Amino acid sequence: MRAVDIIIKKRDRLKLTTEEIEFFIQGYTRGDIPDYQASAWAMAVMLNGMDVEETTDLILAMARSGDMLDLSSVVPIAVDKHSTGGVGDKTTLVAEPVVAACGLAVGKMSGRGLGFSGGTLDKMESIPGFNVNLTTQEFLEQLRTTGLVLAGQSADLAPADGKLYALRDVTGTVQSIPLIASSIMSKKLAAGAQAILLDVKVGLGAFMQTLADARRLAELMVSVARLAGRKAVALLSDMNQPLGCAVGNALELKEAIDTLHGGGPQDFREHCLTVAAHMLMLGGKAADEAQARQMGEVALQKGSAWEKFRALVIAQGGDVAVVDDPSCLPTARRIEIIPAPCSGYLSRVDARLVGEAVVALGGGRAKKGDPIDYAVGVVVQRKVGDRVEKGQPLFTVHASGEEKMAQACQQVLEAHAWSDSPVEPLPLFYGVIR
Amino acid sequence: MRAVDIIIKKRDRLKLTTEEIEFFIQGYTRGDIPDYQASAWAMAVMLNGMDVEETTDLILAMARSGDMLDLSSVVPIAVDKHSTGGVGDKTTLVAEPVVAACGLAVGKMSGRGLGFSGGTLDKMESIPGFNVNLTTQEFLEQLRTTGLVLAGQSADLAPADGKLYALRDVTGTVQSIPLIASSIMSKKLAAGAQAILLDVKVGLGAFMQTLADARRLAELMVSVARLAGRKAVALLSDMNQPLGCAVGNALELKEAIDTLHGGGPQDFREHCLTVAAHMLMLGGKAADEAQARQMGEVALQKGSAWEKFRALVIAQGGDVAVVDDPSCLPTARRIEIIPAPCSGYLSRVDARLVGEAVVALGGGRAKKGDPIDYAVGVVVQRKVGDRVEKGQPLFTVHASGEEKMAQACQQVLEAHAWSDSPVEPLPLFYGVIR
Repeated sequence: MRAVDIIIKKRDRLKLTTEEIEFFIQGYTRGDIPDYQASAWAMAVMLNGMDVEETTDLILAMARSGDMLDLSSVVPIAVDKHSTGGVGDKTTLVAEPVVAACGLAVGKMSGRGLGFSGGTLDKMESIPGFNVNLTTQEFLEQLRTTGLVLAGQSADLAPADGKLYALRDVTGTVQSIPLIASSIMSKKLAAGAQAILLDVKVGLGAFMQTLADARRLAELMVSVARLAGRKAVALLSDMNQPLGCAVGNALELKEAIDTLHGGGPQDFREHCLTVAAHMLMLGGKAADEAQARQMGEVALQKGSAWEKFRALVIAQGGDVAVVDDPSCLPTARRIEIIPAPCSGYLSRVDARLVGEAVVALGGGRAKKGDPIDYAVGVVVQRKVGDRVEKGQPLFTVHASGEEKMAQACQQVLEAHAWSDSPVEPLPLFYGVIR
Repeated sequence: MRAVDIIIKKRDRLKLTTEEIEFFIQGYTRGDIPDYQASAWAMAVMLNGMDVEETTDLILAMARSGDMLDLSSVVPIAVDKHSTGGVGDKTTLVAEPVVAACGLAVGKMSGRGLGFSGGTLDKMESIPGFNVNLTTQEFLEQLRTTGLVLAGQSADLAPADGKLYALRDVTGTVQSIPLIASSIMSKKLAAGAQAILLDVKVGLGAFMQTLADARRLAELMVSVARLAGRKAVALLSDMNQPLGCAVGNALELKEAIDTLHGGGPQDFREHCLTVAAHMLMLGGKAADEAQARQMGEVALQKGSAWEKFRALVIAQGGDVAVVDDPSCLPTARRIEIIPAPCSGYLSRVDARLVGEAVVALGGGRAKKGDPIDYAVGVVVQRKVGDRVEKGQPLFTVHASGEEKMAQACQQVLEAHAWSDSPVEPLPLFYGVIR
């Protein structure tokens, strides 16, 4: 078997066999197949696609390129969650403590923010001392004792993905549904959870811009999970406007803490409860959505979800005094409230533009490894469909200085659009793929 | 400007600007842009194409990636010729001495055989001592004194092509019309001839399998040459069956010598005279095809073309006694004449299968740098459309041993197909692109 023949086959729109995909991925991981062949192959996959069977083979080959965790050695069943990424998406910080509080173990490996999209690890690292670099042993031990872990991706899991993702990033081959699915699912399969909830975002502030693309990705990932012997459900959720109000690491953490205390923006709370309910159903803790939802609401009301979150912070060395009193979190030097420039119905709050404004403030990364300012960000006060009167507060910007403040105010204002006639609010979800 | 954005633009079927193409090619030649980005880009070009303007920009950028020869310093006008490659294509060995004998300087840099397709340098190296490795100074000096040079490609000319071609070879990106055109034309433009005759082969034994593809390639190359201020004409010529009879290095050289002496197979002689006529017209030595053809025939009849060929061999250090007496050329240990297994009209003599049989005999290369056996090869006696009676000689195999002989006889027999009813002969040419 030769790598060039596998590239030519995909170039010519032919279906690759299990053996060919295995040969290519293992060869690439070992370094026998060079980057320049992998990138030509990735471009051929990007332009000519892959069917469900090929994608399944790709995901399994990538998952098997390194260690495969077995969580059943420490808990009867563990559930994992993955969001395809968005703006203001701090769902993990609320949904996972809720689920863990209901007695279902949650072992999650997360990523960092890149581009306009935030990352869970960065949000948790706003807490002084919080350590996301756990060894596999520490991960398993905390899963057993605390029932909740939130760590960085181990380099031993799915190393093919780490290598291929870095290559795709510089060769224009990120936006491919089979390659996105394989990147997500290879890590999820290697991380060992028996049940996986996928939150596939769609809209202006998501990688998937159309509902059709999001649905294809969701269906692909659910099919593959099932073929690999895991349980999976995917939610298609809106990412045209930011989720909740806060965008920026410490600001989002604070909003998550408010929500764990029973407050928080209505849309965000609703989103978290729906995600948690599906996780509880997947983990066999509830018979139907009504029961699962009820369990989640109780966990928020009685404070057991909040106690789980505290236990998580303590277990991973974070300063719990800071989450007990969020005013101790990093704060920006300048805070400015921007009023609505006119009266009308909000027809757009462009999540991508808001996300990019936060990156420009220093709250996100233009490229991997860039430093991050936890304090800065934006809090949007209004949602699409809201009636707003001129002069009412529209959004707040938290910035480190004058110049960045002015630039962000301008950008976030441009993210808002208005209508004279009433506008329908955006739905939270577009569907469930089982 | 970033390489990844140029890749993404081509991936998304957008047109690249002159500056983007220049940036990419110069960056790649210098090593600032790595192979893995160039291969992803080449796959995007392969699958999404390039228009005439983009291809022209690419060719000019590649031509300018190294030295640009200026032949006008030594001769008033020099003409060059390029064949896209085929089986039994020894045209250069006859057409160029004919043209040079008519007073038009011919300075040609040639390639070596690869795969089923033969190379002019290998054929000339059947002559003991013949040196194809000339410095630029030697090339120019011989052009001035002899009016005829046949050398290998200088590494200083179009280095981007050398680098990109090696990469394309291992990444499934050879079969792209804009990339093939840029590989050919960047070298031709850098080599400095003011007029270029392109012999674009089409059929079973050519890289272009369809007339439509061959025409597209030919039109593209002629347009580009004109945009770059050169004169160019392309012939579309048949490569379904071998050109002439001999396939194999010394055997082809011998056939070329026969032709220079006024003999040779009728189709090959005709092909050479047509090519030479177009070169003479391009170089302004003849007003029309009839006059140009007449000049070529005279050069063959009077022996002046033969004298030019001898001068070429002498100038480049070849043993002229061997060309004066071709029986001194390398000879295979075994020679076998295969009779026709049945009577009928020949409907196919598959050039590709014959070419592959010669590679298997040791007369060609499976990969670059493989050693070559000059003596071996095949001489096909009959052409498509010929009536052949059972038992008449069909072809001759020249092999180094028993096993290879048996294998080649089988393969070449399979290249022949028969019909009970009369079959039209194949045309020599399908068209001229001016």
